[in-house]
Amino acid sequence: MFADADLTDDKFLCGKLNLLQPVRGYRAATDPVLLAAACPAQVGERVLDIGCGAGAASLCLGARVPGAQLWGLEVQPGYAELARRNAARNGIAMQVHDGDLAQMPAALRIDFDHVIMNPPYYPPEGTRSPVPERARAMQVDLPLGDWVQAGARRLAPGGWLTLICGTDGLPAVLAGMAKLGSTAVLPLAPREGRRALRIIVQARKGGRGAFRLLAPFVIHAGLTHNGDRESYTPEASDVLRNGSDLLARFR
Amino acid sequence: MFADADLTDDKFLCGKLNLLQPVRGYRAATDPVLLAAACPAQVGERVLDIGCGAGAASLCLGARVPGAQLWGLEVQPGYAELARRNAARNGIAMQVHDGDLAQMPAALRIDFDHVIMNPPYYPPEGTRSPVPERARAMQVDLPLGDWVQAGARRLAPGGWLTLICGTDGLPAVLAGMAKLGSTAVLPLAPREGRRALRIIVQARKGGRGAFRLLAPFVIHAGLTHNGDRESYTPEASDVLRNGSDLLARFR
Repeated sequence: MFADADLTDDKFLCGKLNLLQPVRGYRAATDPVLLAAACPAQVGERVLDIGCGAGAASLCLGARVPGAQLWGLEVQPGYAELARRNAARNGIAMQVHDGDLAQMPAALRIDFDHVIMNPPYYPPEGTRSPVPERARAMQVDLPLGDWVQAGARRLAPGGWLTLICGTDGLPAVLAGMAKLGSTAVLPLAPREGRRALRIIVQARKGGRGAFRLLAPFVIHAGLTHNGDRESYTPEASDVLRNGSDLLARFR
Repeated sequence: MFADADLTDDKFLCGKLNLLQPVRGYRAATDPVLLAAACPAQVGERVLDIGCGAGAASLCLGARVPGAQLWGLEVQPGYAELARRNAARNGIAMQVHDGDLAQMPAALRIDFDHVIMNPPYYPPEGTRSPVPERARAMQVDLPLGDWVQAGARRLAPGGWLTLICGTDGLPAVLAGMAKLGSTAVLPLAPREGRRALRIIVQARKGGRGAFRLLAPFVIHAGLTHNGDRESYTPEASDVLRNGSDLLARFR
């Protein structure tokens, strides 16, 4: 567990959400916010967040869709406990289960309308974090394709899988999605004309639509980095600050 | 074979290339020109064009890289004959072999530095062409993954596979590329901000680079179609009219 002195209290969605996060370790930035914005959950639907960490993606989704039924699975007890505290302090109902996706807890062996995930990834060779919790949260214990298959197994017919990952993971993600359909990939370009280093991938159980590669979603305005100044595009700012969704992008 | 009365003589690359094409049947437009522009062949290297049709992609490549050694494989004798005529009348050396990629002719069972392909595809349900040659050229007799694997088998170590296909083919293409690496996907967006319906995929035998999704290459300028007026972006015009390459896009 994390001691309170090792936590910061961070604002998300312009302060609509306040999340405790470890000073050292995996800290949510824009990825879980973008992931939540892409999930087409509606009121009353069941959502499973596999590898929920401190709860950022689920709680951003809960803030946008009050009444969505949120479940989380987290392998590191310290993060699972933080997710429970974060849910309670933001007044959002969320059931967080300790466990590993390779041995799914019995309570989660039910059909979900949505599965969301922000799988960990290996940092480039030689840049592994010296902080154990951070190294673990950033590290693939299981291949990305196994994450995708575990998520797909938890979907009800017609249910949606939505995930965010590094672009280099796309071949593994598509291989793991062999039993899903209507797959769409949204490239997240850091700036106009730059290649996307992150992608959101969405697919539907039983979907029969053709694979689609969507036009890039551009995060930062301008052609170069402007130091510490806020430089989001209006579209990214709508999602990251105002809590707008990305659903129209996937239609 | 096609009768001369059933052929048109069409200019490519601003008339640098003149290609006989059947009036009815598969007619090359921008795809083979873009494909040729993306192939990193150099003088003296061996290039195999699988499903070469009337030779448009190979001959565009030959026009840009004089001295590249061009081989073609074509299953329809009428098109193979046209490719030979087109090579001769443009003064470009090209060996065209009749045959099927599933039973690769013995003469082509050698190592190539490059394989290029513009595989046929099924038109959407109900729009199959009533012209048999066109229907066949547009039709997948073999799954896309088989095309990719047949191409990969013909590559020398370090050799490059470059293909153009519909975006909906990406999952099958990536599955077929399991033994290649350094894969890059260039989305071809019809206009700025529109999703790409066609993609160029490139991979290297023995390549160890991570999968990359490149920034889209935009074909047409403006946000809407302007009737019959030329509306290429300057970048697309450089490739389609001036014969420039797309190699910098893949670096």
